[in-house]
Amino acid sequence: MFGFKLIKLNCFHSSKMGLQFSSQLLLPILLLLLVTATCVSATYRPMPMRFHRTKSVTKTDSVVDLPPDFVAYNYTQILDHFNYKPESYATFQQKYVFNFKYWGGPNTSSPIFVYTGAESPIIWDIDGFIVDLASRFNGLLLYIEHRYYGDSMPFGSEDEAFQNSSTFGYLSSTQALADYAQLITDVKKNLSAENCPVIAVGGSYGGMLASWLRLKYPHIVTGALASSAPILYFDDITPQNGYHVVVTNDFREYSESCYNTIKQSWNEIDRVGAIANGLQDLSRIFSTCSPLDSTQKLKDHLRLVYMISAQYDNPPENWVSKVCSAIDGTPQETDILGRVAAGLNASLLGGGGRPCNYISDFKLNNNSAWDWQTCTEMVMPIGHGGNDTMFQAWPFDLNNLTRTCQAVFGVTPRPHWITTEFGGHDIKSVLGKFASNIIFSNGLRDPYSVGGVLQDISDTVVAVYTNEGAHCLDLSSYSPSDPDWLVAQKDKEIRIIQFWIAEYNARLSTTKTGT
Amino acid sequence: MFGFKLIKLNCFHSSKMGLQFSSQLLLPILLLLLVTATCVSATYRPMPMRFHRTKSVTKTDSVVDLPPDFVAYNYTQILDHFNYKPESYATFQQKYVFNFKYWGGPNTSSPIFVYTGAESPIIWDIDGFIVDLASRFNGLLLYIEHRYYGDSMPFGSEDEAFQNSSTFGYLSSTQALADYAQLITDVKKNLSAENCPVIAVGGSYGGMLASWLRLKYPHIVTGALASSAPILYFDDITPQNGYHVVVTNDFREYSESCYNTIKQSWNEIDRVGAIANGLQDLSRIFSTCSPLDSTQKLKDHLRLVYMISAQYDNPPENWVSKVCSAIDGTPQETDILGRVAAGLNASLLGGGGRPCNYISDFKLNNNSAWDWQTCTEMVMPIGHGGNDTMFQAWPFDLNNLTRTCQAVFGVTPRPHWITTEFGGHDIKSVLGKFASNIIFSNGLRDPYSVGGVLQDISDTVVAVYTNEGAHCLDLSSYSPSDPDWLVAQKDKEIRIIQFWIAEYNARLSTTKTGT
Repeated sequence: MFGFKLIKLNCFHSSKMGLQFSSQLLLPILLLLLVTATCVSATYRPMPMRFHRTKSVTKTDSVVDLPPDFVAYNYTQILDHFNYKPESYATFQQKYVFNFKYWGGPNTSSPIFVYTGAESPIIWDIDGFIVDLASRFNGLLLYIEHRYYGDSMPFGSEDEAFQNSSTFGYLSSTQALADYAQLITDVKKNLSAENCPVIAVGGSYGGMLASWLRLKYPHIVTGALASSAPILYFDDITPQNGYHVVVTNDFREYSESCYNTIKQSWNEIDRVGAIANGLQDLSRIFSTCSPLDSTQKLKDHLRLVYMISAQYDNPPENWVSKVCSAIDGTPQETDILGRVAAGLNASLLGGGGRPCNYISDFKLNNNSAWDWQTCTEMVMPIGHGGNDTMFQAWPFDLNNLTRTCQAVFGVTPRPHWITTEFGGHDIKSVLGKFASNIIFSNGLRDPYSVGGVLQDISDTVVAVYTNEGAHCLDLSSYSPSDPDWLVAQKDKEIRIIQFWIAEYNARLSTTKTGT
Repeated sequence: MFGFKLIKLNCFHSSKMGLQFSSQLLLPILLLLLVTATCVSATYRPMPMRFHRTKSVTKTDSVVDLPPDFVAYNYTQILDHFNYKPESYATFQQKYVFNFKYWGGPNTSSPIFVYTGAESPIIWDIDGFIVDLASRFNGLLLYIEHRYYGDSMPFGSEDEAFQNSSTFGYLSSTQALADYAQLITDVKKNLSAENCPVIAVGGSYGGMLASWLRLKYPHIVTGALASSAPILYFDDITPQNGYHVVVTNDFREYSESCYNTIKQSWNEIDRVGAIANGLQDLSRIFSTCSPLDSTQKLKDHLRLVYMISAQYDNPPENWVSKVCSAIDGTPQETDILGRVAAGLNASLLGGGGRPCNYISDFKLNNNSAWDWQTCTEMVMPIGHGGNDTMFQAWPFDLNNLTRTCQAVFGVTPRPHWITTEFGGHDIKSVLGKFASNIIFSNGLRDPYSVGGVLQDISDTVVAVYTNEGAHCLDLSSYSPSDPDWLVAQKDKEIRIIQFWIAEYNARLSTTKTGT
């Protein structure tokens, strides 16, 4: 069994990695996050004008890690927004990053683009399409780190924060949204920018947060660009097998033989693994850094390879084609295992000149904030049967998840909470005459897109997707190598956001003149 | 100083009191609540069809207190919806009341009218206009008690729940809204009524909750009738002196001489109280049950008399006219104190054949859940200067409130939280193209109306008010004695709600037929 660990949601733009991550650095980061690393792509720019500091704002040490124009601060955030026990009043330092380079200033009602941080340090998310937006609209850039990630640790450190379910307990999406609401409100006040429209931008889990921030706090956020946000992958809204069906289709569309090879490989791994010295053979064939002690670990790792290849099947890498080309391109006499091993080596998790393949560990980790979130409310029931994908059966098992979460974290999942708190069922009926100004963007090659909003809900709550792109692609900076369909997607998003800002400023001037 | 205690917000329909409260019972209830007692008015009806019980639903003992057709149940509610600490998973029994008499059943998509309980036991709110709505639209009636009121006590009892800031800490409006969201969702599921539209109805604080429930949970609540909900009486949105300016205007409009007498009375009380035996004289003049030990207590009590006279200046009692008639109707030679004493005796808090007047205690009470709420988030900055009303100066003093709340409850108010969480500033701009299906109803004689929404925000977020009515009047049942303007107000509300339900059902059938 693959276990319960779901592939992480983060955006990740390998084509435009910022902060000069080398490909040597990529593998450990990917393994660390299982999939992740968020949309990062930096161009160096001159120093920004300085932020008017207040008592609760102090520059952090991390400023040294940021490119020019970006400055990090700490905000003194309340630990629990929704109850009034004495310990709820405790505070922690929440990191946020400004870039003032493009801002027209408060008097011009120039927009504030808020990047809603997700399940990784905010420093990984600096730059990207949001900078293009700021440049285009004379916007202020404000990146906010999610509590329990990066430097934004309640109780002062990760060691303290991740200690047990009592210290972890304050990590929830509603608390994170309230953090953003509180911080944005105070920042606007400090900048005398109360009249500036705020546009939230986020990808993946951060995209969910961006859309929910608009839905729950319309008085704080004027509009939201929610990229690759699978807000409908909860409860029974999206078929459980959706994710793996898309992965399968991505591979099958590229190459029927590649698809067939992968589909046949699982039984072959089982067969070889069951014979004497079979695990040794498998370890050799797949060049594992440590000897395999089960076929399941290998199968889990290969499944991950195909999942992330599909999830990040974006140009210019197009990982599905890379993996399939390797599988299909082996000499004719190569057996099934040799073919999939070649696929592994050509994948995002393999190759790169390394002598061996590290096999991922899929156990839930009580040192992972994201694993905590999947054990509490981010219960996405992803699974599938034995015949509907190119994988072996992997049903979603809530009871098993519950037992594991109780064992690892001492916490019981609340699988229906997200739809109770944020909705999702019948979204077109519910939001058709309620809500406005949200873009749900997707690339249909992204397996998570199946849980996204792919249909316009109204004139202003719209779906903007491409058939060709995958996870979070539109959040990467404009690049000369962008294909036309990607340029078109981004241009469309810009036109919509332009309309929001114009409408906001028109309403504002109407209010001011009393007309 | 009047202290910090704000007049409670509850609805109270003395004209149509249900559950056969005698007028003898009224005074103690009023004094107990300072002002309160919620919209209650019962007609006895036959037993309802029984609710399909689930594990989490058991009939409570309180069923014996309810009129026929109304049946109370308990729902096992989670203590803290927004964090995942072990103690958050504790549960308590939340009371709710059904009336199935009018319901068309789940297959007809007949509406569910949810009464969003406020700061009093739900049993006091049974019946009222909501029953007329149910009767009119074949609706199911569902009254939900607010946590920490009535029988819905976390930790099992009031003694335990009100113990300290740790046990009180789970009392907040956001938790209450999540309670309603969770309970409604489960109840609909249990009744197989997922397709039925839900209309929230509430008055005063309960009206705020009804409107916020629609704003935050549009996937659960289709529309909201928010009667006398001063959602704009937070931060600096509404002028602090608004409440007392309306009280003053109510009195002055009725009678200039009455207004003048009251205005002059404060200094006269101070003058008499300052001379030897003056307090004894005042005790005699105002027939106090206990000797006065300060003029402040008397002035606070009289201020309360005028406040609630204005707040409940509804027909047929029209308390302002009763009090002013008494003040103006005293023999010509009566001095100022004699006149205002006559006003007191004719008021809702005086007379009734009682031999003496109990003088209210305005200290914050650590046994009051509402006082806790005013010490945490329900910080309505009500106060005024020395010359803008008929009262002596009574500025709002946040520092003083903070000190007192810390002393009484060990808690520090968060005065800006409500607008951060729910908005309020620039409401027309913010919600003009966001949100739908809310009626904000008011009577302009109600001092709280000044903090209400008195202007249409959009086609479907509308203000429906009367010049003549006061607090929550439209939530009382239709009565043959209703003045035309009140009938017109209720009829308008019915037409709007009819439109919501029709639109909902039309969308539903569109979805079902896939058109």
